[in-house]
Amino acid sequence: MTVGIIMGSKSDWPTMKLAADMLDQFGVAYETKVVSAHRTPQLLADYATSAKERGIKVIIAGAGGAAHLPGMAAAFTSLPVLGVPVQSRALNGMDSLLSIAQMPKGIAVGTLAIGEAGAANAGILAAQIIGTHNEEVMGKVEAFRAQQTETVLANPNPAED
Amino acid sequence: MTVGIIMGSKSDWPTMKLAADMLDQFGVAYETKVVSAHRTPQLLADYATSAKERGIKVIIAGAGGAAHLPGMAAAFTSLPVLGVPVQSRALNGMDSLLSIAQMPKGIAVGTLAIGEAGAANAGILAAQIIGTHNEEVMGKVEAFRAQQTETVLANPNPAED
Amino acid sequence: MTVGIIMGSKSDWPTMKLAADMLDQFGVAYETKVVSAHRTPQLLADYATSAKERGIKVIIAGAGGAAHLPGMAAAFTSLPVLGVPVQSRALNGMDSLLSIAQMPKGIAVGTLAIGEAGAANAGILAAQIIGTHNEEVMGKVEAFRAQQTETVLANPNPAED
Amino acid sequence: MTVGIIMGSKSDWPTMKLAADMLDQFGVAYETKVVSAHRTPQLLADYATSAKERGIKVIIAGAGGAAHLPGMAAAFTSLPVLGVPVQSRALNGMDSLLSIAQMPKGIAVGTLAIGEAGAANAGILAAQIIGTHNEEVMGKVEAFRAQQTETVLANPNPAED
Amino acid sequence: MTVGIIMGSKSDWPTMKLAADMLDQFGVAYETKVVSAHRTPQLLADYATSAKERGIKVIIAGAGGAAHLPGMAAAFTSLPVLGVPVQSRALNGMDSLLSIAQMPKGIAVGTLAIGEAGAANAGILAAQIIGTHNEEVMGKVEAFRAQQTETVLANPNPAED
Amino acid sequence: MTVGIIMGSKSDWPTMKLAADMLDQFGVAYETKVVSAHRTPQLLADYATSAKERGIKVIIAGAGGAAHLPGMAAAFTSLPVLGVPVQSRALNGMDSLLSIAQMPKGIAVGTLAIGEAGAANAGILAAQIIGTHNEEVMGKVEAFRAQQTETVLANPNPAED
Amino acid sequence: MTVGIIMGSKSDWPTMKLAADMLDQFGVAYETKVVSAHRTPQLLADYATSAKERGIKVIIAGAGGAAHLPGMAAAFTSLPVLGVPVQSRALNGMDSLLSIAQMPKGIAVGTLAIGEAGAANAGILAAQIIGTHNEEVMGKVEAFRAQQTETVLANPNPAED
Amino acid sequence: MTVGIIMGSKSDWPTMKLAADMLDQFGVAYETKVVSAHRTPQLLADYATSAKERGIKVIIAGAGGAAHLPGMAAAFTSLPVLGVPVQSRALNGMDSLLSIAQMPKGIAVGTLAIGEAGAANAGILAAQIIGTHNEEVMGKVEAFRAQQTETVLANPNPAED
Repeated sequence: MTVGIIMGSKSDWPTMKLAADMLDQFGVAYETKVVSAHRTPQLLADYATSAKERGIKVIIAGAGGAAHLPGMAAAFTSLPVLGVPVQSRALNGMDSLLSIAQMPKGIAVGTLAIGEAGAANAGILAAQIIGTHNEEVMGKVEAFRAQQTETVLANPNPAED
Repeated sequence: MTVGIIMGSKSDWPTMKLAADMLDQFGVAYETKVVSAHRTPQLLADYATSAKERGIKVIIAGAGGAAHLPGMAAAFTSLPVLGVPVQSRALNGMDSLLSIAQMPKGIAVGTLAIGEAGAANAGILAAQIIGTHNEEVMGKVEAFRAQQTETVLANPNPAED
Repeated sequence: MTVGIIMGSKSDWPTMKLAADMLDQFGVAYETKVVSAHRTPQLLADYATSAKERGIKVIIAGAGGAAHLPGMAAAFTSLPVLGVPVQSRALNGMDSLLSIAQMPKGIAVGTLAIGEAGAANAGILAAQIIGTHNEEVMGKVEAFRAQQTETVLANPNPAED
Repeated sequence: MTVGIIMGSKSDWPTMKLAADMLDQFGVAYETKVVSAHRTPQLLADYATSAKERGIKVIIAGAGGAAHLPGMAAAFTSLPVLGVPVQSRALNGMDSLLSIAQMPKGIAVGTLAIGEAGAANAGILAAQIIGTHNEEVMGKVEAFRAQQTETVLANPNPAED
Repeated sequence: MTVGIIMGSKSDWPTMKLAADMLDQFGVAYETKVVSAHRTPQLLADYATSAKERGIKVIIAGAGGAAHLPGMAAAFTSLPVLGVPVQSRALNGMDSLLSIAQMPKGIAVGTLAIGEAGAANAGILAAQIIGTHNEEVMGKVEAFRAQQTETVLANPNPAED
Repeated sequence: MTVGIIMGSKSDWPTMKLAADMLDQFGVAYETKVVSAHRTPQLLADYATSAKERGIKVIIAGAGGAAHLPGMAAAFTSLPVLGVPVQSRALNGMDSLLSIAQMPKGIAVGTLAIGEAGAANAGILAAQIIGTHNEEVMGKVEAFRAQQTETVLANPNPAED
Repeated sequence: MTVGIIMGSKSDWPTMKLAADMLDQFGVAYETKVVSAHRTPQLLADYATSAKERGIKVIIAGAGGAAHLPGMAAAFTSLPVLGVPVQSRALNGMDSLLSIAQMPKGIAVGTLAIGEAGAANAGILAAQIIGTHNEEVMGKVEAFRAQQTETVLANPNPAED
Repeated sequence: MTVGIIMGSKSDWPTMKLAADMLDQFGVAYETKVVSAHRTPQLLADYATSAKERGIKVIIAGAGGAAHLPGMAAAFTSLPVLGVPVQSRALNGMDSLLSIAQMPKGIAVGTLAIGEAGAANAGILAAQIIGTHNEEVMGKVEAFRAQQTETVLANPNPAED
């Protein structure tokens, strides 16, 4: 496995699935797992601590509300960690975004947008990171990027389906 | 020690000192320690896991920004945890407040106000919790409360020093 | 009764019921009552003033919008007060959260998350407070915590129901 | 006394003084008093309950942070209550504004702007309320209004002192 | 007519109707009119300028978004003006609240809560203002207040319909 | 005069001066005047109503807080109106920005950034508008734009003064 | 073509259509095109760079979320650019508004309200800009304005359909 | 050069310098350059388009306010881009954070915290990304991490310098 996708709850899966879909598209192997910072803190510590030796290159962590999962995963590993703020019920993910992005100096999390766009982009950014040393993956990212450019160029009329 | 006061950084001490001062006033024994959720996650796990058997009754945790310390302490102990959002540089503690308060169902943190008022009130609330089974401490809390009421009543003129 | 659950309006009950459900689970006796800070201020004063002598150990107060109930209950008692910001219509509970959390130095409210998660956690935190001097209740809290950890560990696949 | 100006703390006086200054200018008699919703709740109840029979026509209440004073004063009286959100340390008065303005249906507070402008305007609005049945006061309000219009008209050049 | 209820658009009526309903309950005569600060600025100027001589004692103005109506009505009259922030589509009335409440020193608007609660309370506050010199109206306000207190006291069980 | 620069108070001048400075640079004639929506509403109506016949092509209006000036100027003229949210004391211009930008359908204000950058850009945008039919002004805007591009290109080293 | 209406995605069209509808009403020729700042940055550069020589007088750009389209269009042209913050999913357009309005000194975007009102007003403001040198268009804007004033005046009763 | 550090203005350097300092510490070669999305859009396009072939592996982009630089750099390259929200004057970097983080699906930016902490963490995260395929750099990151853990563990007393 090259990428580990973790999330705080099964209810985050409809969002986080978009990260997995992107990695599928780029041919990057990944695993998915529910790991709760608050309900299974030891699992989180074990998961993040062992990720590097298990061959993981990038961790994608999604969580909503207090959203401690990405930051705590980063605390337990030296691998790059990407955080996805899942849209929360009351505050629409503003709490998730601030909790994930506002990390103190010394432990970094690369934060993506709130919700599905952020999850998809976490998959893309993970592939870009892997692509810095894997021309095949980078080629697939570039093909995807070229394709989405083509899609816009081929459909310039906003009023047409 | 009855109360454990932890904070993510030495820079939180000028704020968190007010919690300690309150406990001094109520004759509640406490310990203070820098425990960083992100830089010393294992220390946090050890501290919180062992707190109950060391006789701690309440943990007060202060942190700013992403402010994962209170929530992660709560994840590792069944003791009541009180969280103090330290005023952060860019967002004035709004990030700290949301990160501490917006815990998911299942793991609770009792959150106080941003900054010094919150730290002092964490000390008071810890004493109130201890006071539920310690008449001496409760008596001191009530005396403090009566005293602050008296102070207002004795100085009703806002324009007078 | 060990815990008093009060709320500003019947419309808060669907939220606050989660606090009661938690206390049921921990075998903690409680009472529930509509007490409005604004419409029945004298009832609030009477309720909070007499709570301790009636044997209440912790007050849980839920309210939305201006949400003065928790802070005013705290003003009339030396018991620990936990506040639940009920999700408000226009501002999604951000107003409730700030009104409950931003108490001035001297009178403390332990604030939980906005909405149902916060109400459930208020029940848990109340039980933790009682559990500091009641091993049976603390044991039930710990069993609940272990159970929810187990539930996550036993269902690690996010894509599986 | 025609207007009662109350505030939660002596530290609110530099703000609330502007309400008093306005009433001086309109020849409206007033009293000023520190009344804390949280530290002296019974004083607040007594003050607001007795205000009408003591001849008070309007209550102006200033407070910062959780800022329960205006709403709780309104709960104990049928007199019109005007609320001034004092600028708070961490959140610049946004907490004060929401706590005062977001009152539930049934108990009203007329909220002014955050800080000194709001305090001055509370004095003006109180005078306007009194002026609805007192031509002399209304005349003075109108003269003040005309004067401030004149001041702008007489100094149209922004770059000139 | 004693109270003028104006609003920026017909779409504000479902909110503002609650102000009218309250005044009906207190037997206070009122008129209602669509007056747009932006689409009919001259009508607004004429309406507000002439209100006092037409016998109006209080103006209630409701608007959403930029919500200039209450502040501009206040600019054209010396009568007390109460502002109701109508819940806006994108920002849920936070824009309306700030636009109405944050008036500069010198021109006052008494701002109520966002949406229906605020509209109802504007009706109550208008009646309280009139009631400062009209015992019959004040008596009806007090009866309403006593009634709503009774309603809470008679239905203390939150789980019961 | 081609551009009218108005502002709600002399205290807005240090901000609004940057709009004037830009117009000086582009050789666009302008006038500056203090016009308060709230303290001099009739002057505002007169100013905006007569602006077009006096030869004004664009109005730049700056205000802070409730900031009704730009929207009300737009209500009284068919000329394009640009609004500058002046940084307010308590809320840092967030109130000004929302009050100016969130205009209802039917009356438009082109809103710039909060504070000095916004004022300067209002001057630039006014010149761009005039430049759509004045090649000399457009040429000066383009020269200014080219110059600022050159300044960046000529000083690529961030660590060098 | 006199006005270019661009937007970041086809999903912005239901909003941006209101700008087109307004221009139709004023008889101003326009073109509409999907141009994505992020997916087709070169198209954006080409579009904005060539707009002036193709006869475009004003560019209207709508985008949501990070919403870089208006600011980047402005970076590539000296034509006036109007920005419409499309209402985003998680943050309701607050992100779009700040991203479009908070441009740095030197490159201006005239920002309209979030969502449909803003799109319609962008059409109006574009027509007003063109109208500064085209009496026919200005006449149509003024007729539209007079018409909407008439509509309010003719339907003053808010409770009547 | 392995990392490219770009920023919108020289005024961003005091913040962005912390990214450079971190890379120095990890022995990662980097270049620094002022590249303005708005004032030098073609330079940005050229810089980002050519970065990969010049051997750059990661781009760190810092900007404040509308802060389009990171997102637009990402639009022109397939390299991973990390964004640093520089603390802005009026809104303290909340605008910068939203503009950088809220990218649409398809183009990713890994966003760090507002201000200096975020800049330092961008340097760390860039090194972690490079470290996924460079054991020497990863070793230095891990040594830095171990060192900062040691520093906390060696200084547990918050009240001691």
